Amino acid sequence: MMSSRTQISRTAPTQFLELKGGERYAYRRFGGGSGLPLLLLQHFTGTLDNWDPALTDALAGERELVLFDNAGVGRSSGAVPTTVGGMAKHAATFLDGLGIETCDVLGFSLGGMVAQQMVLDRPAIFRRLILVGTAPRGGEDIMHLEKPRLAKHLQDPSNKGYSVLKKIFFTLTPSGQAAGVAFVERLAERNQDLDGVSGPEVANAQMAAFRDWERFTGDRFADLRTISHPTLVVNGIRDEMIPIVNSYRLAENLPNVVLVTYPDAGHGSLFQYHDSFARHAAAFLSISSESAVY
Amino acid sequence: MMSSRTQISRTAPTQFLELKGGERYAYRRFGGGSGLPLLLLQHFTGTLDNWDPALTDALAGERELVLFDNAGVGRSSGAVPTTVGGMAKHAATFLDGLGIETCDVLGFSLGGMVAQQMVLDRPAIFRRLILVGTAPRGGEDIMHLEKPRLAKHLQDPSNKGYSVLKKIFFTLTPSGQAAGVAFVERLAERNQDLDGVSGPEVANAQMAAFRDWERFTGDRFADLRTISHPTLVVNGIRDEMIPIVNSYRLAENLPNVVLVTYPDAGHGSLFQYHDSFARHAAAFLSISSESAVY
Repeated sequence: MMSSRTQISRTAPTQFLELKGGERYAYRRFGGGSGLPLLLLQHFTGTLDNWDPALTDALAGERELVLFDNAGVGRSSGAVPTTVGGMAKHAATFLDGLGIETCDVLGFSLGGMVAQQMVLDRPAIFRRLILVGTAPRGGEDIMHLEKPRLAKHLQDPSNKGYSVLKKIFFTLTPSGQAAGVAFVERLAERNQDLDGVSGPEVANAQMAAFRDWERFTGDRFADLRTISHPTLVVNGIRDEMIPIVNSYRLAENLPNVVLVTYPDAGHGSLFQYHDSFARHAAAFLSISSESAVY
Repeated sequence: MMSSRTQISRTAPTQFLELKGGERYAYRRFGGGSGLPLLLLQHFTGTLDNWDPALTDALAGERELVLFDNAGVGRSSGAVPTTVGGMAKHAATFLDGLGIETCDVLGFSLGGMVAQQMVLDRPAIFRRLILVGTAPRGGEDIMHLEKPRLAKHLQDPSNKGYSVLKKIFFTLTPSGQAAGVAFVERLAERNQDLDGVSGPEVANAQMAAFRDWERFTGDRFADLRTISHPTLVVNGIRDEMIPIVNSYRLAENLPNVVLVTYPDAGHGSLFQYHDSFARHAAAFLSISSESAVY
């Protein structure tokens, strides 16, 4: 479905950052404005092609976006790390390689975990954080795709390619499914220079990272209380993949956070309500104060 | 502390609606614009004088506000009901008396419970609901002022008049207390035509209503699932009076709700972040769609 919006996401070329003695990272960088660059960190098995162009087009009007394939994902070289910590190191190395000292970050799902780990490792790397459909270390029920409500869609052979996303990222209500169909159509707007669909080697390593992220030692959520960065947490209230309780724990333990939940929405709430989410995110990112309240 | 804002809340006259064979209700009605009227329903022991003028001045620019003293509160006649249901009947009678068939509502704390009951009793009475620092019927830990963390402030004789509010409505952090001091100063801007402070007969009856509201029969929260009205739920993440878990239950059970939580904020989050709350509320109220997502 075409629209009148600026369709920069559809044609932005994939670029490659090749680091001497390191990996070759695939990324796309587009948009501009007075805001800091915004790093986008992607979900389980997701690639550069999995960002909703309606959302990225909207956000790109006021700042430069940097979409990133972590090691071993899409057309980035290397092995997919089996820990969030390993992914965080790659993402930081990538930012260093681009010469970006400080930026904002939008981390969705697995990407939100990577963002949390990056800011714990190097607080100055981010100014403001947007964490969507994600969980803190020690969170609950993170990405258990073997749960019957998820497994039945993943094992259904009629859900080919990205079309399974409309079943697992969206509620099964008429409005949820309509939003899911529209989302999958928008993903298909870009039809060249594609990463393609991730294989089982990506899924298996990332799943190991989720299992590790569920574990914690010592004072649960203590790490969160050291992150003073302004943070916006967003989640669909019916998220089956990373349930809402994880966003509650983020809101209760991050010292400087606004939580927003969307109704009749699952894991892909930011895509279902892309207009509102882009407005909320832009309002949050436009603030120069020390407070998360926008 | 004076500011450059329109200070309509400071001088709006108290009016009285006297119903034949019924009560005399005190109210204030001011502001205007293209929006529906907004009914404001007040917290435990609160009167017309307890609305933050910074908030009401901001909201009054786009709609008419109707501030209301329920029966037996402030200068309204009658006995304070000992149930939320009784308060809901008075508020509906009051709207009928003013000839307001449908309006929006902002219910804070006890007022949020009254708003829920009103819309259950008469769905057409409201278009959109804003529920702040409140709980569903069957909620948890509602207004237990005997808890040590609250009782120590309420029993401290140095907390005279409204100044106790800065201890129980705000966090005890420096920024929370600074916001509390500013709030109490703003309440003092209005210095004539006042309701005055509520006495124990108001507190005792309203406390009985809280105890009743904690009880439920049958399917817990089933009533909420019948309220399809667009609803905005707002709460401070550190609310000691009506803890955040009650807002989670509202967000999970109301079908059409956006939840927003504010950091380092207690029960009075809407006053602490009055600028942001007024923006969020105005954005929510300005939408004409069927969705709560603004």
